[in-house]
Amino acid sequence: MNAAQPMTIAGLQAQYRDGTLTPAQLVDSIAARLAEGDPHHAWIRPLTRDEMMRYAEALEDRDPASLPLYGVPFAIKDNIDLAGIPTTAGCPDYAYVPQTSAPVVARLIAAGAIPVGKTNLDQFATGLSGQRSPYGACRNALDMRYASGGSSSGSAVSVALGIVAFSLGTDTAGSGRVPAAFHGLIGLKPTKGVLSTQGVVPACKSLDCVTIFAQTIGDARIVFDAARGVAEDDPYGRLWSPLAGAARPREARSLAGVRLGVPRAAQLEFFGDDSYRAAFDAALARAKAAGAHLVEIDFEPFLATARLLYEGPWVAERLAAIREFHAAKPEALHPVIREIIGGAARWSAADVFEAFDRLATLRLQSERVWSSIDAIFMPTSATTATVDELEADPIRVNSRFGYYTNFVNLLDLSALAVPAGQCTVGRHARLPFGITFVARAHEDAWLLDLAKAWLGNDETGAEAANPSDDLNGRTRVAVVGAHLTGQPLNWQLTQRNARLIRTTRTAQEYRLYALPAAPGAVGKPGLVRTAHDGVAIEVEVWEMPVCAYGSFVAGIAPPLGIGTLKLADGSLVQGFLCESAALAGAIDISDAGGWRSWVGGCSETADVGP
Amino acid sequence: MNAAQPMTIAGLQAQYRDGTLTPAQLVDSIAARLAEGDPHHAWIRPLTRDEMMRYAEALEDRDPASLPLYGVPFAIKDNIDLAGIPTTAGCPDYAYVPQTSAPVVARLIAAGAIPVGKTNLDQFATGLSGQRSPYGACRNALDMRYASGGSSSGSAVSVALGIVAFSLGTDTAGSGRVPAAFHGLIGLKPTKGVLSTQGVVPACKSLDCVTIFAQTIGDARIVFDAARGVAEDDPYGRLWSPLAGAARPREARSLAGVRLGVPRAAQLEFFGDDSYRAAFDAALARAKAAGAHLVEIDFEPFLATARLLYEGPWVAERLAAIREFHAAKPEALHPVIREIIGGAARWSAADVFEAFDRLATLRLQSERVWSSIDAIFMPTSATTATVDELEADPIRVNSRFGYYTNFVNLLDLSALAVPAGQCTVGRHARLPFGITFVARAHEDAWLLDLAKAWLGNDETGAEAANPSDDLNGRTRVAVVGAHLTGQPLNWQLTQRNARLIRTTRTAQEYRLYALPAAPGAVGKPGLVRTAHDGVAIEVEVWEMPVCAYGSFVAGIAPPLGIGTLKLADGSLVQGFLCESAALAGAIDISDAGGWRSWVGGCSETADVGP
Repeated sequence: MNAAQPMTIAGLQAQYRDGTLTPAQLVDSIAARLAEGDPHHAWIRPLTRDEMMRYAEALEDRDPASLPLYGVPFAIKDNIDLAGIPTTAGCPDYAYVPQTSAPVVARLIAAGAIPVGKTNLDQFATGLSGQRSPYGACRNALDMRYASGGSSSGSAVSVALGIVAFSLGTDTAGSGRVPAAFHGLIGLKPTKGVLSTQGVVPACKSLDCVTIFAQTIGDARIVFDAARGVAEDDPYGRLWSPLAGAARPREARSLAGVRLGVPRAAQLEFFGDDSYRAAFDAALARAKAAGAHLVEIDFEPFLATARLLYEGPWVAERLAAIREFHAAKPEALHPVIREIIGGAARWSAADVFEAFDRLATLRLQSERVWSSIDAIFMPTSATTATVDELEADPIRVNSRFGYYTNFVNLLDLSALAVPAGQCTVGRHARLPFGITFVARAHEDAWLLDLAKAWLGNDETGAEAANPSDDLNGRTRVAVVGAHLTGQPLNWQLTQRNARLIRTTRTAQEYRLYALPAAPGAVGKPGLVRTAHDGVAIEVEVWEMPVCAYGSFVAGIAPPLGIGTLKLADGSLVQGFLCESAALAGAIDISDAGGWRSWVGGCSETADVGP
Repeated sequence: MNAAQPMTIAGLQAQYRDGTLTPAQLVDSIAARLAEGDPHHAWIRPLTRDEMMRYAEALEDRDPASLPLYGVPFAIKDNIDLAGIPTTAGCPDYAYVPQTSAPVVARLIAAGAIPVGKTNLDQFATGLSGQRSPYGACRNALDMRYASGGSSSGSAVSVALGIVAFSLGTDTAGSGRVPAAFHGLIGLKPTKGVLSTQGVVPACKSLDCVTIFAQTIGDARIVFDAARGVAEDDPYGRLWSPLAGAARPREARSLAGVRLGVPRAAQLEFFGDDSYRAAFDAALARAKAAGAHLVEIDFEPFLATARLLYEGPWVAERLAAIREFHAAKPEALHPVIREIIGGAARWSAADVFEAFDRLATLRLQSERVWSSIDAIFMPTSATTATVDELEADPIRVNSRFGYYTNFVNLLDLSALAVPAGQCTVGRHARLPFGITFVARAHEDAWLLDLAKAWLGNDETGAEAANPSDDLNGRTRVAVVGAHLTGQPLNWQLTQRNARLIRTTRTAQEYRLYALPAAPGAVGKPGLVRTAHDGVAIEVEVWEMPVCAYGSFVAGIAPPLGIGTLKLADGSLVQGFLCESAALAGAIDISDAGGWRSWVGGCSETADVGP
C-alpha cells in the first residue's frame, strides 16, 4: 500500500467483489503498515493484528454485497468507545475500558466495518489544533511541519495516510471540519443528534456531534447512512428527518441556481494569510462559474454566535462533563486544557441564562439570513499554522481556526467540509485549502449533493443505488391547465416548494376538453383517457414534498381529480384527470395540443370581458 | 352588574347584537363598579373612565359582528405592557411607562377588546400565592379569608368578580393555572411562544407564557385565536402549528375512549388536604363515567422535573432578567422575593449545564409516558390555603401549590386548568376544586375540546363558527373497495391515523365495476359517475391529517384516482374514482350496491384459490 494512496470504500468493494482481496488479507496489510511506526502521532491505541482479525473473521460467511461496509477499515477518535479497548479522551489518568462499543461504532461494525484503532486528539476534544495531547502533538499527514488540525486530529491523519478508508471524529466547535480542511478530506459534521453520542466522552453535551472523515462524497454518504440511528435511551438522539420543518428536502445535480451565502468582504477574515485568501477567491470564482448564485450575507449573527461559544460560559459545560475528575485530579490535565477549563469558574448561573437569551436573539437574526440563501459557502479555516507557531501561542493561533466553525452547532446547523484544491500562492502554497457548505438541521443529504456538484465527482453508479436518495420524500404530479407555469393557479405549486421537472406530452391516448364555464370566464380543461383517437397533450411534471401533496390534492374541485397519466415516453405519473360524466357541454380542444395553446388562441379571438 | 355574575364574551356579543348595550355604556358601568373600591387588592392600576372610553370610542364606527372581541372588557397582569400606563411587575421602584402595548395586548385591542386595568401579582411573577405584593396581598374573590393564588392573582380575581370577561396572566411555573383553580375559572396556559411574550417583564425568559383566564371554554378559545401571533423580531415566538410532529391534530367530542394519564396513588399528593383528595376522587369517577380510559402513569419524571425547577438553578434566570435592577436596588424587592432571587448566587455556570443535562434525561423519560396516553389528568393544585397560613410559612405553603404545575413549561407542554365542581367535605368544603388537562406542545385546541367535553358545555353555536376548528388540518376521503374496513388495504388508512367518520352511500349517480384482474385474484372496483341509470354505492368516509393524505394519494395506481364524489345527502367529498377508459372488460356490479357485498357474494361462490 502506498503511503498516501487514498483508500476508498468503493475501491475496496470492487476488490472484494472481484475476489482480489479478503478482509483477512487487508488486516494483514494494515497491521504491517502500522508496524512501520507512527511518526505523525496519529494513534493512541492501534489494534493488534489479532484484534482486527477477529472482526475480519466475523465476515467470513457473509456475502460482500450484503453489507454496505463489508471489510472496510476505519479509525475511531479516542473519545468514542470501542468495546474492550481503553478510551482515554487524550488523558491517560481518565482512561477506562468500556464493555460495549458506542452505538455509532457498533452500527458500523454491524455493517461490516473493521476497527483499526483509537486515534489521537486534543485532550477532551478541547481544541482545533491537534497539538494538545500527552500522546504527542499530531503532525499533518501532508507536511509534518504543519499542525494536523483538531481535535479529531488522528482520525483525519489516518484517513489521509490511506491506512483506513474512513474515520469517526467528534465536533463541538469545529473538530470534525478543521482537520478535514488541513488534509484535503471530506468532513461531514451532521445534524446534531442523528449520529448517537452515547459512548462518547462529552465535551459540551448539548453541542457534541459525531463526524465522518472520508475521501469521497460517495463514501461519506455510505458511512452516514450506516451510522445513523437513535437509541431509545439517548436524551440527545434525534431521528434524522429530511422532511422536517424549514429543512425541506431538496436535491441538487449541479450548483446552477443554488443560492450560496458568502460573508461580506469586510467579514471575511484570513488573519493575514494570503495563501488562504487567494484560495478562497479562486473557490468563489469556481462556484460562480458552476452557475451558483453568490449572495453576499451579513455574517455578523454567525460571528457573534461563534464569539459567544468561544468567549462565553459554554466552557462550563466542558467542566460539568468532567467535574468530579477535574476536582480530584486537576494536575492530570494538559496545561493548555487546564487553563481553558479552569476558566469555567468565572461564570455564574445567571451568566449562562444571559448567554442563552443572547443566543436566542442571534439565532433569530441568523434565521433571517436563511430566507435568502440555500447554503453558506465559506472557508473551513481562516488560516493554517505550523507546529512551531502553535507551540508559541497555543490559544490564540488555535482560535483562528474556529473563526468559520464555532457557530455551527450553537445554531443547530449541518456542515460539510470539502476540499477546494491547493493554495497556489504565498507561504502555504501546495497545502490543501478547504471550503465548508453549511445548511440547516436535517439538510445533510442536500449538503452531500452540493459538495458532489462542487467536486464534479462522477459517482453516479454508487450514488444512484444509495437509499438516502429515496428518502427525499417528494412526489410528482402532471398538471394540464390552470396549474401550468404562467397560469393562474401555478402558485399552488410554487408555494408548496414544488419545482418544475419537465414540460412534456402525454402518450397519444387522451383527449382534452374545455369544460363549461361561467359566462366570460376562460373555464378549465378536462383531460380524459380514451380508448381510441387519442392525441398527445402538453403537460408539466412538477415535483413537491409528499407531505405537501395532500393539501394540494384536497383542494381539487370536481369534476377534476388525480389519476395516473401515461407520458409520451411510456412512463407513468400521477396527474389531473376529469370525470367522463362531466363532459356534457364541454368543447373538445384536443387539436390545440394543450391548454396553453388553446387559452392563447382563445384570448386572441374571444372578448373575455372585465 | 351583580358582584359575581359571570361576564362572558358570548353574553356581551348577544347584547351588542340586540342593541341593548353599547361599549360606552359598558365602560360607564365598569367605571362605577371600580369606584366601589378594591377590597381584594385585585388592581394595581385600574384605568379611569376616560381612559377606557377612548377604547370604546374607537369602536363606534365598527360593526359588532366584524370584531371577535368587540367591546369585550379585559384585565392585564401588571407585568404586561399597556401603552401609556405604568408597568410595575409588582415592584414600584421598577416601574416604567411603556410607549406601546405588548403585541399580545395590541392584538386583543385590535380585535375590539377594551382594557380595564393592570392587575396585582406576586412581585416579578415569582410565586403561586398572590400574597407577595407591596400593593396588598390579593384576596380570593369567593372567600376573602383565602389566598387568590398567584402570581396572576388580580387577573383571576377580576374575572371571578365579573368586572371583566377575560384577562391575561403569565405562567412560568403555574401562575396561570393555580389562580384559575382557586376561582373556578378556565386557565389556559398555551404552548410556549404562541402568545408573544414581547412587552412582558421576564421571569424565566425561556419558560414564560402569556395565559388566558375566562369563564367558559368558548370564551377562552375566542381569546386564544385573537391573541395568537408571532412578531418577526421575537426570539421566543413560535408559530402555532397544530400539525407539528408528535402533536398530531385531533379533536374530541366526548371523553369516550380518551386515554387520560393519572399519577399513581402513591404519587398523588394533597399535603393532608382531605377536601382536595375527595374532590379529585370525584373528578376521576366523573371522567370514568364519561367514558375516559384512566391510565395509571409513572409520574416521577414529571415530579423530578418540577423539583428541578423549584430546587435547581433556574432561579438564576429570574436573577438574569432583573440583574441590573437587583444589583442597584436590592432593598426595593419584597422580602420573600429577595430571599428567593438571592438564592441564585449559589449556582454556578456548570450547575446550569448539569441541570440541563438532567432535564434532557427527564424529558426523554416523560416522552415514554406520552406514548400510552392522550393527556394528563390531575389536580391543578394539591391544596389551598388561607392568607394567614401563607403569611405564617410563605415559601413552603406556596410550594405545595406547584406540585402539579412546575414541570409543564420545562417539558414544553400545553395545559388547561378547568373547574371540577366544589369541594364537598373537609375544611375547604364549598370552595372550588380544579383539575388540569396537560398535553404536548401545540395541542391547545385538543385541550379545549377535552375540557369542553369534561364540562359538558353546550356552546355548539359559538364553537362551530370558530376558525380553530378549521385549523385541525384533517381532510376526508371516501373509499369504495380495498380500503374499506376489513378489506386488505384498510391499513393504509389506519397507519395514517385516519378514522372512520361514517359509512354511507353515494348519490344515485354512479356505477360500480369490477375491473379485470389476474386469474384467481379478486381484483378491484372502479367507481364511475354516470349521466343516467346511476345507483347509490356504499362508501366509507375516512378522515386523516392532510399532511398524510399526500402519500396516500401518491400510492394510488391507475386506472384509479381521486376525484370528488357526491354522497346520498348531497354533500361532496373527495374519493376514489376510476377512468372510464379502463372499463373495457370490467363487470358492472352496481346492483350489488357496493364492493363488500360483491366480494362477499363472490367469495361464497368463486374459488379464489391459493
